[in-house]
Amino acid sequence: MAEQRHIVLTGGASGIGAAALALFKADGHRVTVIDRNDPGSAADRWISADLSDLWSIPMLEPVSRIDALVNAAGLPPRPGLEATILRVNTQAVIALTEHLLPHLTPGGSIVNMASKAGGRWRSNFAQVQRFLALRPSEDPEAFIRAEAIDPVRAYDLSKEAVIVWGLSNVARFRDLGLRINAVSPAAVATPILDDFMTAFGERASRGVDLTGRAGQPDEIAQVIRFLASPEASWVTGCNIECDGGLTAQIEYAVLTGGV
Amino acid sequence: MAEQRHIVLTGGASGIGAAALALFKADGHRVTVIDRNDPGSAADRWISADLSDLWSIPMLEPVSRIDALVNAAGLPPRPGLEATILRVNTQAVIALTEHLLPHLTPGGSIVNMASKAGGRWRSNFAQVQRFLALRPSEDPEAFIRAEAIDPVRAYDLSKEAVIVWGLSNVARFRDLGLRINAVSPAAVATPILDDFMTAFGERASRGVDLTGRAGQPDEIAQVIRFLASPEASWVTGCNIECDGGLTAQIEYAVLTGGV
Repeated sequence: MAEQRHIVLTGGASGIGAAALALFKADGHRVTVIDRNDPGSAADRWISADLSDLWSIPMLEPVSRIDALVNAAGLPPRPGLEATILRVNTQAVIALTEHLLPHLTPGGSIVNMASKAGGRWRSNFAQVQRFLALRPSEDPEAFIRAEAIDPVRAYDLSKEAVIVWGLSNVARFRDLGLRINAVSPAAVATPILDDFMTAFGERASRGVDLTGRAGQPDEIAQVIRFLASPEASWVTGCNIECDGGLTAQIEYAVLTGGV
Repeated sequence: MAEQRHIVLTGGASGIGAAALALFKADGHRVTVIDRNDPGSAADRWISADLSDLWSIPMLEPVSRIDALVNAAGLPPRPGLEATILRVNTQAVIALTEHLLPHLTPGGSIVNMASKAGGRWRSNFAQVQRFLALRPSEDPEAFIRAEAIDPVRAYDLSKEAVIVWGLSNVARFRDLGLRINAVSPAAVATPILDDFMTAFGERASRGVDLTGRAGQPDEIAQVIRFLASPEASWVTGCNIECDGGLTAQIEYAVLTGGV
């Protein structure tokens, strides 16, 4: 069994977060879950917090040293939730990470949930930078209106921004002895899969057709587990696609004129 | 301890390959090493073969079922070795993988050593395709002369081609129940590090300056170990940078005009 580590995990009550919680506990680690919902007895500690309310984050008491921070909480695209999506999927990730940074021990690891939906971050870099120029505590409503962002674009942007924010901090965090990586799944068999299939329509169903199935939460959690572990000591600044080859397959088809 | 698996590993006698051998054995797996040099008692079986001589590959007898194939053998840039670099780093990877494909069991994994040096595969896609259009058994000398390829370009191209060849096979291999991924280190503290520092000059020393040190062979081998394992069951078509953040840091600097 690996050395016991203390892991702070958002979104640990369901989906990919719950699968990660199960793996961390099976490895013998101590896990603090931050979630609106009760993660049950698997967690060593539950901090009830609504990550769409950034003011609830500073309420977190000073915690013991943290070896890994896994930002797994996230909202799918839903009409009317544009601002909440940007708050939970990006702004809360940034605010919580910065808030906990002094507690992360050298050798520590930050793992953020991104998505295949965030894969066009290079093309959308200018808009991502405008979004990231907001203070993490700033309400994104004005930005959403000014840039005419719909729920699907809000979701994609939220994940693009998580990826870019990670890249922008690789050197700074390395100086602190910390690593930061992202994991990008495509469709995953979680309670919010229906939301994605409805919002993304053919784009999502075509992906599942190509790979033959949706990913399982445990399969995504295994990548999180690896990145959070000391075994990934030289892996930082990566965005690891965990999508059954969907991203690779589509990029190769585009490059060879097959799409 | 994980279920015992049979792993075929090229280049297991030194450097990253030897580090991977040590990890696989620590996990209790059976490892067949293909190398010119004796990997020592750590390997369960040593097949002595020169991967620059593709005709030696069909000599391999039918082997028992294989759970993972790790193509770790590789040559650094050295004057006069252009053809050998393309043969060992790319053509042998393709020939050996195709040769062993019928023996790889569903759920199996192929892991190829790429490199940060192969990271410009998108920009060089046309030349990569011309190289990959050669039969794996075809002598690349004429191609090297026609395209005026020097040792550094030969090395970069060999790794670009490994990445692209992997992408081109994601769907085909998935239909066989197989995954294929690449690992891309930057500078690594192996016996051939001096070759890279000499050949790449400032490009290599600047990278080590940015990340503070070279990677350790074991750190690269840990990524190989993860990709070769059933834990990475939904990871295929990836090229995982294991470079202390060098790729991310440089890309972000370029995108923001910092370089």
